[in-house]
Amino acid sequence: MTTPTIETNTATEHSADTNGRIVLGRNQYGKAECRLVKITRDTARHQIEDLNVTSQLHGDFESAHTEGDNSRVVATDTQKNTVYAFARDGIGSPEQFLLRLGKHFTESFDWVSGGRWEAEQYFWERINDHDHAFSRNKSETRTAVLLIENGVRHIVAGIEDLTVLKSTGSEFHGFPRDRYTTLQETTDRILATDVTARWRYRADASDLDFNAIYTSVRGILLDAFAQTHSLALQQTMFQMGKQALEAHPEIEEIKLSLPNKHHFLVDLEPFGLDNPGEVFFAADRPYGLIEATVERERADGAKSEAAIWANIPGFC
Amino acid sequence: MTTPTIETNTATEHSADTNGRIVLGRNQYGKAECRLVKITRDTARHQIEDLNVTSQLHGDFESAHTEGDNSRVVATDTQKNTVYAFARDGIGSPEQFLLRLGKHFTESFDWVSGGRWEAEQYFWERINDHDHAFSRNKSETRTAVLLIENGVRHIVAGIEDLTVLKSTGSEFHGFPRDRYTTLQETTDRILATDVTARWRYRADASDLDFNAIYTSVRGILLDAFAQTHSLALQQTMFQMGKQALEAHPEIEEIKLSLPNKHHFLVDLEPFGLDNPGEVFFAADRPYGLIEATVERERADGAKSEAAIWANIPGFC
Amino acid sequence: MTTPTIETNTATEHSADTNGRIVLGRNQYGKAECRLVKITRDTARHQIEDLNVTSQLHGDFESAHTEGDNSRVVATDTQKNTVYAFARDGIGSPEQFLLRLGKHFTESFDWVSGGRWEAEQYFWERINDHDHAFSRNKSETRTAVLLIENGVRHIVAGIEDLTVLKSTGSEFHGFPRDRYTTLQETTDRILATDVTARWRYRADASDLDFNAIYTSVRGILLDAFAQTHSLALQQTMFQMGKQALEAHPEIEEIKLSLPNKHHFLVDLEPFGLDNPGEVFFAADRPYGLIEATVERERADGAKSEAAIWANIPGFC
Amino acid sequence: MTTPTIETNTATEHSADTNGRIVLGRNQYGKAECRLVKITRDTARHQIEDLNVTSQLHGDFESAHTEGDNSRVVATDTQKNTVYAFARDGIGSPEQFLLRLGKHFTESFDWVSGGRWEAEQYFWERINDHDHAFSRNKSETRTAVLLIENGVRHIVAGIEDLTVLKSTGSEFHGFPRDRYTTLQETTDRILATDVTARWRYRADASDLDFNAIYTSVRGILLDAFAQTHSLALQQTMFQMGKQALEAHPEIEEIKLSLPNKHHFLVDLEPFGLDNPGEVFFAADRPYGLIEATVERERADGAKSEAAIWANIPGFC
Repeated sequence: MTTPTIETNTATEHSADTNGRIVLGRNQYGKAECRLVKITRDTARHQIEDLNVTSQLHGDFESAHTEGDNSRVVATDTQKNTVYAFARDGIGSPEQFLLRLGKHFTESFDWVSGGRWEAEQYFWERINDHDHAFSRNKSETRTAVLLIENGVRHIVAGIEDLTVLKSTGSEFHGFPRDRYTTLQETTDRILATDVTARWRYRADASDLDFNAIYTSVRGILLDAFAQTHSLALQQTMFQMGKQALEAHPEIEEIKLSLPNKHHFLVDLEPFGLDNPGEVFFAADRPYGLIEATVERERADGAKSEAAIWANIPGFC
Repeated sequence: MTTPTIETNTATEHSADTNGRIVLGRNQYGKAECRLVKITRDTARHQIEDLNVTSQLHGDFESAHTEGDNSRVVATDTQKNTVYAFARDGIGSPEQFLLRLGKHFTESFDWVSGGRWEAEQYFWERINDHDHAFSRNKSETRTAVLLIENGVRHIVAGIEDLTVLKSTGSEFHGFPRDRYTTLQETTDRILATDVTARWRYRADASDLDFNAIYTSVRGILLDAFAQTHSLALQQTMFQMGKQALEAHPEIEEIKLSLPNKHHFLVDLEPFGLDNPGEVFFAADRPYGLIEATVERERADGAKSEAAIWANIPGFC
Repeated sequence: MTTPTIETNTATEHSADTNGRIVLGRNQYGKAECRLVKITRDTARHQIEDLNVTSQLHGDFESAHTEGDNSRVVATDTQKNTVYAFARDGIGSPEQFLLRLGKHFTESFDWVSGGRWEAEQYFWERINDHDHAFSRNKSETRTAVLLIENGVRHIVAGIEDLTVLKSTGSEFHGFPRDRYTTLQETTDRILATDVTARWRYRADASDLDFNAIYTSVRGILLDAFAQTHSLALQQTMFQMGKQALEAHPEIEEIKLSLPNKHHFLVDLEPFGLDNPGEVFFAADRPYGLIEATVERERADGAKSEAAIWANIPGFC
Repeated sequence: MTTPTIETNTATEHSADTNGRIVLGRNQYGKAECRLVKITRDTARHQIEDLNVTSQLHGDFESAHTEGDNSRVVATDTQKNTVYAFARDGIGSPEQFLLRLGKHFTESFDWVSGGRWEAEQYFWERINDHDHAFSRNKSETRTAVLLIENGVRHIVAGIEDLTVLKSTGSEFHGFPRDRYTTLQETTDRILATDVTARWRYRADASDLDFNAIYTSVRGILLDAFAQTHSLALQQTMFQMGKQALEAHPEIEEIKLSLPNKHHFLVDLEPFGLDNPGEVFFAADRPYGLIEATVERERADGAKSEAAIWANIPGFC
């Protein structure tokens, strides 16, 4: 087995003093994935809200870690109970529900300074306009995260699992070629992706109509994908984000993570057949992965605060 | 449907100028999940290395986003080809392999300023000490991430999917009780978790024996889990991280994410049976989720740089 | 560890002669999960068909098993190539496509006596009625199996992953109580399930309009679920199958496999709250599993030929 | 969209009278996936048994389907309770545990004529020989099914998820070539598969040492895979089954389902590199799928009773 020689990294960086005490750093804990279904049955025409809720607290929990002292550990079971108890008064929107939870935990316990509350929402449609029979629409998942840090409430909404495809109107050429480049240029290819997007609301965002904005952003993302004649998935992605920000001043930045789900044109020539963009092999792995933040330019030239996003999985 | 009233967040925060231009923020792109199997067959006794490699580049790709100009877009297909070509010279360790990839991309293209390279490694064992027949050990996955930013190489190694359980030696009591608390205290419960850990090496770390350190950290995590009489999963987790840092000065910090996989004692009394810690229902969801960083205290009082971790999924 | 005593099974059964030669029994082989996307672009308004195709052959392959003689082994790679080549002429419906494949393989190779061909179909919807931009409808999967045995073509169509829920109109009471029964009776519960159904067409079925029948059966299953006031999931299931058979004489039998996805009413009393059918915990495991065949009574009193179904996964 | 013409199937088959009444056919119901962990703590050195148990009853449940009459429906919740209550007396082996359950249900309720009980078993290993700390061995899953029909107990044991690979010692050539064949012959390829096997014990099998036989069969399957110089995966598969039957007269037949997990040699020539069997791309889909029964020749010439297997998922 050839073991390649690795040159020593000579970059200097402020390193920790290796003689330093070993201490607890950032931490959080709670109950994850409380599956909550809320039926609103004020009338014979029922409403259904279907969530997956996670509650995690930040604060002074050091003695639990260092000594096993649980006197400040609000049990994860208690957090779960609170989720179900609060649902009795209704959900409204995932963001509103998380804001209520966050307010409760930070105001009820002195030592809880903040936390992270997350919800996935699943959608249901009525079966033939029936009053109380539904079928699940699995074509997308709505997400929401509330992060409370230093007294500020950051709200990040999102969409996942939204799979889209264009059967033409996508090109890819003009890329640099080096020793390892074998890809042919193309002026007509399938472009397909699973949309994952997360957008951060401005700090005064807690009284917005989150449901309406979600529906609007979802429509904009789909429309921008469909309408953009694509020279690169990067270009399509930037248009998706830009158009969402243009329509929604209450959104400060949006992050998109788009796999390029390759559909390879099958070579049918060995079988005496042409293939003018008709028969494709849909590959699993590897796949391209294109990710970016689209944001508003700031007066002070500052960029997106990455720290806020450290707690949101899977984004650059 | 009751829509709860949400008070307006009065916290002030430096907000973006909503009239600001909409611009491209942080971005990265590349090829994800290149499944690479390397057989070393210098002798009749073959070696197998099995990786899942992702390559993503950082740099000046603005015109691809804003204009669909691909003149600087090193094709994701080219990145994939490079992964396979570099494997011809051997892997050695995931970290060493990623360092070679990172060096290549940042040195070959002026406009590539950095990037993110990741690998999962899967393990195989010989079948009855056979020279070229193996069975896969699925009990854990090794992970490695190289992040190059501003000329500095950050290396984060990790382990995932390592499921452990203690059938006694775990207590949980002394937690605060409020209106929503129903959990009973216990002095004897099952403690079970799936270990996910990621540890960051010091900046001069590129010439370490990464394979040996991985094996050592893995052993320390298992041993600390087994040996710690647990009053809280937080306590066990902190011991796991602390003992890893004590043994490895080359590790600056370690992050752990541990689900508390609940095993509920089944109430057999309705059936006229006792249940002295023998029969359990292993629940799926919800589950506790306990996460922390264990780090070295720094002379300047600074804490872990969260920005570095924004690109590593799933950690606080 | 208590090892329970097991009485010897005294049932007599025609057992194999243990001195008998060890021989090859039923066998099949082929290529599984060929991901095939067909774009029909005769006009600017594109059509998309998205399939996952498996081809497996039956016949005389004994020498491959016993001697490694591949002279009769139509390579699985060849089967895959055939799938893609045949797609050049269009799909039409999964059933029609499988019939073309089956005809080809059984007519092209003397020693291929039959086989099993299967397809999953995934659905796409136009984005805002766009000509070539689509989003995937993930709310169901269509399935089709063609089994050719002894010159007869058996076609089994199906639907999977169709998740439905009634928020009322479901009762469960009157069940027997024994030492192990603790469940309370209820006159109002959530009823939720993932519909998996497979229906077998009559033997002369190859010229049917399979797409139209699929749409019709899907609608009947949904409607029967919604309209049936349920005293047991068994009752709802039987209605679903019965109504499908009543509307479609070309269907001989239908098998349904319905998990009872429990939604437990959360006890909010400890928190001073009532819960009149509003707040539920959606459980993962365990779940009820209710399965049945609904079929036409046969003149000769014979029941469904289980042998045909041995090759269809997951049904009683 | 070209719709291919499908010739009418002229095969004659005994078809159902379409005027026949629509009736209930085969059916079964119960509770699926009861996650059961049993700790045996007679001494300080604990034992752990980890199962996923499904119980389904056969019998006269017609009125539940046709009228919603539950007077014979042993609640699935009761079945679950019984599983946990029976675990109080120990597991022993999955087969023994299922036999106890089957005996209970068929003897306790007149109208229960049989049923299907299934268990998956997960394995744990001690951490450094610790008395009560374990790590899960995820490299395989053990399965067991008990089917009681007409007073006979059929026991089918199995193994799943056992992934194996040979880096050489595998050839594939001599296969027929037709218009659709492009595959090149090879005398040296990687052979990799996930072993799924199910073996049926003879009818008097209920007092066997199932744990010992499982361990033995597992070892034989691994050994036969490793030792067979493979000219076809069919040949390797047959050897695996044959050697298991030769060693275990109590096993009547064994079914194997083996995906051919393709590892494609990467063409490095465009990059000026050779690739003598060293660098491979491990593909996801499509994959070969090779399935067979290996059985004892029967005096009466009869073959394996497919009907028994209709209730076991995923086998030919």
